[in-house]
Amino acid sequence: MSQANELLLPARATICEVAPRDGFQAEKEWIPTEQKVRIVRELAKTGIRYMEITSFVHPKAIPQLKDAEEVVRQVQDLPGIHFRALVPNVKGAQRAIDAGLKKLKLMLSATDSHSLANANCRVEEALEGLYPIVELAAKHGVQVGGSISVAFGCPYEGNVPVERIMHIVERYQAMGVNEVSLADTTGMANPKQVYEMLGQLKAHFPQITFSMHLHNTRGMALANAVAALQQGITHFDSSVAGLGGCPYAPGATGNIATEDLVHAFAEMGVETGINLDAIINVAKDVRETLGHDGGSYMLQAGPCSQLHRKPQGQVKLET
Amino acid sequence: MSQANELLLPARATICEVAPRDGFQAEKEWIPTEQKVRIVRELAKTGIRYMEITSFVHPKAIPQLKDAEEVVRQVQDLPGIHFRALVPNVKGAQRAIDAGLKKLKLMLSATDSHSLANANCRVEEALEGLYPIVELAAKHGVQVGGSISVAFGCPYEGNVPVERIMHIVERYQAMGVNEVSLADTTGMANPKQVYEMLGQLKAHFPQITFSMHLHNTRGMALANAVAALQQGITHFDSSVAGLGGCPYAPGATGNIATEDLVHAFAEMGVETGINLDAIINVAKDVRETLGHDGGSYMLQAGPCSQLHRKPQGQVKLET
Repeated sequence: MSQANELLLPARATICEVAPRDGFQAEKEWIPTEQKVRIVRELAKTGIRYMEITSFVHPKAIPQLKDAEEVVRQVQDLPGIHFRALVPNVKGAQRAIDAGLKKLKLMLSATDSHSLANANCRVEEALEGLYPIVELAAKHGVQVGGSISVAFGCPYEGNVPVERIMHIVERYQAMGVNEVSLADTTGMANPKQVYEMLGQLKAHFPQITFSMHLHNTRGMALANAVAALQQGITHFDSSVAGLGGCPYAPGATGNIATEDLVHAFAEMGVETGINLDAIINVAKDVRETLGHDGGSYMLQAGPCSQLHRKPQGQVKLET
Repeated sequence: MSQANELLLPARATICEVAPRDGFQAEKEWIPTEQKVRIVRELAKTGIRYMEITSFVHPKAIPQLKDAEEVVRQVQDLPGIHFRALVPNVKGAQRAIDAGLKKLKLMLSATDSHSLANANCRVEEALEGLYPIVELAAKHGVQVGGSISVAFGCPYEGNVPVERIMHIVERYQAMGVNEVSLADTTGMANPKQVYEMLGQLKAHFPQITFSMHLHNTRGMALANAVAALQQGITHFDSSVAGLGGCPYAPGATGNIATEDLVHAFAEMGVETGINLDAIINVAKDVRETLGHDGGSYMLQAGPCSQLHRKPQGQVKLET
């Protein structure tokens, strides 16, 4: 096959499971600590090696994650899993470090509107607030990754200029952070935008490892993941059973489901190291445990590989 | 922006609305003729110019479409809409021509298993059966388009080799059919496969116009549409409100929703000539009329352009 006719994708991609943080935090009903721990332990059996385990935020901000320390303590024994936790401030960072986390993820919004709604301060203030966290982490030899929420579109301001993202990545680089997660927080990204923004970011920041945090709010998450793969991006966040939701679109699907991402990548020959049947079974358990899922095609239709017995007689005409 | 960093897509794409055929035929509850006609008339106001209006199949095979002639008769006055109808055999073709249709769409499966289940004969028999339809159409100066069901994967046989599709397209070309719709009937296609198969088909059949008929059964329809756009494909089928369903996956979404396709294309600067707000309103009406939709992100979350008022105070932390 001529290369012109080949869609060139990386042979491997790394998926970070974020349901224990981004998924659970969206749940209204309290999830008992033992259930959280059980799900994390099941996830660890699927081949997942990276997990965003919780967020060390003020319990009043997100009561669902008030058991952060306890969850971390009860999964410390899991071998070969790289845990990270989201930290909104120095206090949260200290709690995460005290709990034994070896990697922290920073929070930041691309726009002032979202930053004010989400963190009660403008982007520049928020950026300043990150320095002491990075210093604290360095002092304890703890890794730090950055993130940019609403990087591809803001539900309040709409389009986010690439220059704005460039500026924030520069600031991250200046503080010694060389991993940046680009979050399509409310599912506003499209594949052309993702491909072109990543192309520019990669050209300007060859030292930075970019990862994609995609929500499927408008059905474009998988298309955006493929666009990112076409740019050589190999790090993705996803959430088992599609947990996560979107506070701006009731009933809308949330994070791209880990099982859907693993399935699509496997179909395209992109190896994730995650067992599809195993992750689908965890998704089923999560749906049963929480009473719902957040939008999962694998839970609805199952994988392509699941063939059907030929029906006797004629079925409805279909094309 | 360097071309290397640009995702090159066609400036325009043509969407054929198939809900009146592929959508309605999947509905268990009888849809009164006047409701079918009303929805078709609403669709005609959105900028849609191509519509698969019905299927001239035996009423016992699909009772829902037994009013094919009547529906066609009642929408004949609509200006500027190119109607086509699916025809399974010569009898259906004659009915369609008698009803005044100027374009027929042929049915054919890529695999014997699906062909036997769907049309009670093997692919080669089915191909032979197409010749008299094409002759009849030629005699009446009526256009004919071909289609290949389960072109990217068969729910009974799994993978469909590209050679098989090549063979069928050759047969179509031999009978003078220069339009072929490639149908991912049960949502088994992936973007890499779509991109690469289309590349090979375009290289071998430069005279043939290929169109994509995508189902979103496994969440890959939009990613597949983008892969097709990247190959320069500009003809797509879709179904308002995502009507269509998939007989093999209860509860699974069906055809890609016209409003989701129009939205994604518009976000990427691919002009369809269809008004997004108008098609979303028709989708809402369809959902209300039928009591459900077939999977529509626009109905769940609305378009990206629909911004939100900045909430007072702080909302839940999200990335």
